[in-house]
Amino acid sequence: MTASRPLVVQEVCLRDGLQIEPVFVPTAEKIRLGNAFGELGFARVEVSSFVSPRAVPALVDAAEVFAGLKRAAGTVYVALVPNLKGAERALAAGADELNLVMSAGETHNLANMRMTAEQSFAGFAQIATLNNGSKLLNGTVATAFGCPFEGVQAPAKVLDIVRRYLDLGCTGITLADTTGMANPRQVARLVEQALQLVDAAALTLHFHDTRGLGLANVVAAYDAGAQRFDASLGGLGGCPFAPGASGNICTEDLVAMCEEMVIPTGLDLLRLIELSKTLPALVGHETSGQVAKAGRVGDLHPAPPGLRAA
Amino acid sequence: MTASRPLVVQEVCLRDGLQIEPVFVPTAEKIRLGNAFGELGFARVEVSSFVSPRAVPALVDAAEVFAGLKRAAGTVYVALVPNLKGAERALAAGADELNLVMSAGETHNLANMRMTAEQSFAGFAQIATLNNGSKLLNGTVATAFGCPFEGVQAPAKVLDIVRRYLDLGCTGITLADTTGMANPRQVARLVEQALQLVDAAALTLHFHDTRGLGLANVVAAYDAGAQRFDASLGGLGGCPFAPGASGNICTEDLVAMCEEMVIPTGLDLLRLIELSKTLPALVGHETSGQVAKAGRVGDLHPAPPGLRAA
Repeated sequence: MTASRPLVVQEVCLRDGLQIEPVFVPTAEKIRLGNAFGELGFARVEVSSFVSPRAVPALVDAAEVFAGLKRAAGTVYVALVPNLKGAERALAAGADELNLVMSAGETHNLANMRMTAEQSFAGFAQIATLNNGSKLLNGTVATAFGCPFEGVQAPAKVLDIVRRYLDLGCTGITLADTTGMANPRQVARLVEQALQLVDAAALTLHFHDTRGLGLANVVAAYDAGAQRFDASLGGLGGCPFAPGASGNICTEDLVAMCEEMVIPTGLDLLRLIELSKTLPALVGHETSGQVAKAGRVGDLHPAPPGLRAA
Repeated sequence: MTASRPLVVQEVCLRDGLQIEPVFVPTAEKIRLGNAFGELGFARVEVSSFVSPRAVPALVDAAEVFAGLKRAAGTVYVALVPNLKGAERALAAGADELNLVMSAGETHNLANMRMTAEQSFAGFAQIATLNNGSKLLNGTVATAFGCPFEGVQAPAKVLDIVRRYLDLGCTGITLADTTGMANPRQVARLVEQALQLVDAAALTLHFHDTRGLGLANVVAAYDAGAQRFDASLGGLGGCPFAPGASGNICTEDLVAMCEEMVIPTGLDLLRLIELSKTLPALVGHETSGQVAKAGRVGDLHPAPPGLRAA
């Protein structure tokens, strides 16, 4: 089998993975993980979120984590920012890229950001002016495949947000399935439409495995032309509406799938699995990742001793 | 979106799901589940396995379960049989279909069945003679996508087993990913090849979610022309080599995916979820199914009270 075109895995464990954890992971451990992600060669690492410490106490140390990181040459270190104040803090902390976020679902945007869509756009315009081209801007459309309050979102609405992000100077766009509502057919269609507005090199798909479709959605998006995917080590992360369900798609499970499908990722699966096995001690529970438990497909087992026909 | 061609879900929870559980599920509860599967309209229900009670104590009550079932008119009740003795017991118990099984990997066949491949075939020939066309015969190729001892299996070897099953008079063929080693590209290729030997109506794909690819493999197989899939309520089942990893693909997660993709299954998702929620009390642990925890995609949440922009 010949190799397919590469798939770029972007690590979001430190932000999307940890933000929902009730335990505060020590800053030094976050830095250890962030350094490991850089050494492993991830193209992008989402380091933290500059939101209200009251809203997300797990990420209150965002600036300290940025300050403590050893930066790898090929890695873009990303900060999620919801508003101008967050952008100021992220720029001061030395983020390489600001990830702006708003939800396609207006109810979700109000619940999550306490802003209307127009308030979000107005804030992004202020951020773009503040940034003045100094750092990269990525625009994320949360709940792009469905809102837990409103249901499915019209593709035209999602694509309109994409256009407005591009007009503001965003060089990257993320379509996020924030609460795991996407299905492969829907994903293929929206990716095809989005790729008419933005190059594949600038488009990220961000899937959650809430209903078991995370990797099926990756395959559908990749086959439709997408190449960049967010994933979280161990599958850390989750959805506040689905206690006990899986969270973000799992980095090592995604990389394992790519290896089996001969899709290059440039990542070392064994080292990812080792790193993932350090997570349960940090968060106090098993993670949802499968390959760390099952082993790689190629990790064969010795035949049972004394094997013979009856 | 227009509806796609139907996908047939076959329920294997009572056999493949329960066989690995350390707890003995009471016969009356097995019968309750089997009756519910018939009422829900499953085309096929694998009821139990006529193997050595020493080898699989969880299924020692196979004959009692068959005897206690209320048979639904449209449902084929299947018994797994590894050898002639098992076939005699299954026919006496009133199974509608005997599911013959051998592994593509000879090491796995020796470990699992204590038979060489040729011993398995010789036993199947005896079973076919005994059966003499009275009941349906299905032939399962276990480890068709990979053997935990030997690794990937050559498609030619798998297809040769399929041909020999057909020569014996099998009217159904199952390709089983017994320990969850398959990937979507491999699945698409093997399904395309298998469909040159057997009609889609006679071909079953049996996937495990051991490494998170269960539903991605279903989509790949369906898109390649397959239409029949085994699944297990709650995702019960597992792989002895992957403690803590997911087991069989989960019936209600599969049906939920099909609903979102407008693929008819004829099954009532809400009733499946209710039934799945009775499983943890039977087996003494949470199941791996996601939709029973997360709810259907269309189960929207009320907006938080007092929602307004800051």
